[in-house]
Amino acid sequence: MNSADLFHNIVRKRSFLCIGLDTETEKIPTFLLKEKDPVFEFNKRIIDATHSSTVAYKPNTAFYECNGSRGWDSLEATVEYIKFNHPDIFVIADAKRGDIGNTSRMYAKAFLENMPFDAVTVAPYMGEDSVSPFLSVRDKWVVILALTSNKGAGDFQYHGEKGVKLFERVLSVSREWGTVNNTMYVVGATRAGMLKEIRQIVPDHFLLVPGVGAQGGSLEEVARFGMNSKCGLLVNSSRGIIFADNTAGFDRVARQKAREMQIEMEKYLSGGNLI
Amino acid sequence: MNSADLFHNIVRKRSFLCIGLDTETEKIPTFLLKEKDPVFEFNKRIIDATHSSTVAYKPNTAFYECNGSRGWDSLEATVEYIKFNHPDIFVIADAKRGDIGNTSRMYAKAFLENMPFDAVTVAPYMGEDSVSPFLSVRDKWVVILALTSNKGAGDFQYHGEKGVKLFERVLSVSREWGTVNNTMYVVGATRAGMLKEIRQIVPDHFLLVPGVGAQGGSLEEVARFGMNSKCGLLVNSSRGIIFADNTAGFDRVARQKAREMQIEMEKYLSGGNLI
Repeated sequence: MNSADLFHNIVRKRSFLCIGLDTETEKIPTFLLKEKDPVFEFNKRIIDATHSSTVAYKPNTAFYECNGSRGWDSLEATVEYIKFNHPDIFVIADAKRGDIGNTSRMYAKAFLENMPFDAVTVAPYMGEDSVSPFLSVRDKWVVILALTSNKGAGDFQYHGEKGVKLFERVLSVSREWGTVNNTMYVVGATRAGMLKEIRQIVPDHFLLVPGVGAQGGSLEEVARFGMNSKCGLLVNSSRGIIFADNTAGFDRVARQKAREMQIEMEKYLSGGNLI
Repeated sequence: MNSADLFHNIVRKRSFLCIGLDTETEKIPTFLLKEKDPVFEFNKRIIDATHSSTVAYKPNTAFYECNGSRGWDSLEATVEYIKFNHPDIFVIADAKRGDIGNTSRMYAKAFLENMPFDAVTVAPYMGEDSVSPFLSVRDKWVVILALTSNKGAGDFQYHGEKGVKLFERVLSVSREWGTVNNTMYVVGATRAGMLKEIRQIVPDHFLLVPGVGAQGGSLEEVARFGMNSKCGLLVNSSRGIIFADNTAGFDRVARQKAREMQIEMEKYLSGGNLI
């Protein structure tokens, strides 16, 4: 999938929503616990309920790894279920990996070849050779952490010299490693004010924006400061959609929450003359 | 295990070796491929052959994840085998994780609670709340990337302001998050000359040093610039030991290679009057 395909899907669905499948076993409705794979069963029902409002899903690997090899099976079943039923939906492994070249190559194999993920998130600390093995997989993407949504983002990401902060250097250096068709950046919605500055450095790249909802970011501000002529945004919501309810009707509530976000996004797409 | 226990083991074994279990299926002797779990069988034989020369093992998760849930089972079997047979050996999950607080908590659970690893490596890019969930697990450690051994280390780790490079800031800021009994740092042997400067910032912390051998770092330089009064070093070797031979006698060759490193390390420990 390239950035034109992604934009096409955004226009068709009138949405730039990404739903985070951060499926904690402790938080899923208890009636699902009798299933053979409760995490996959939960994800399946969330996907069935929300796919028409979203252009992307993003399972965070931590919530699967904490269930050991069974969790890895749930992750694999989830991405396969999405790509089999909705091949046009972009699926991101939120894994935040990154290692020396020959090791990153193994992570690229794990997520982009053995599993049908479209993209993997990576931490940029180790530099180019930790990222490039992901870029060399045809038609797949890397999503590089730039400015994250958490409190600790302030510890190192603003560190810099001659007015160049670390996250700015990450953007300006790493944009040369790939293209707008295989590289995205994570920019937290809790730093929406910085989006204007970030768009000076990467005007055309897609940005993956977490932190709307539970973490306090504003969708309106993200759209105002971050949208470009091809939308250029995937805004993620996890808990606010998937754990909005934990009764037997949890999937209907999730559908409603996703639909509400899609409707708000449609407004911003329309306001930007993109649909 | 605290730093005094680790030093005690170093003195007893006259070694500060860490063996990297970066077990690529493609590189293990073909006669093992008929085993039910060839990766675990390989690791088991390497461990049986080398445990008397080493104080630590370090499986890198990438080489297990690329085998899917079966790989996760191999990883779990490996760490359990080590801790059951050699509870005094320090075992590091080289996972380079790090995410927002509630997510890092899941990684801490995966590696330090569900599996009996003593430590996890983490990338510091996301700051304190991405690291602290690992520090809150009693008697377990976090190993923070400071200055890595790869080429890409130069892309961001030297970036800085007023003469303070990023890796120096990572050291000086993060040393306050934990103690010398739960925090170590990765410093690549390919940057051994920097160890003197690094010891100014973290004189008492253990350093995990990869990059000796295949990557070109010198053990002698690492010992000269990095050793402190409690040794303070774990030097890792992976390919140079575990893939030194791929015939039926691979484990005897691995034993010999580990023993050679131990003998060299004994010389430096003795030279530093630590044994």
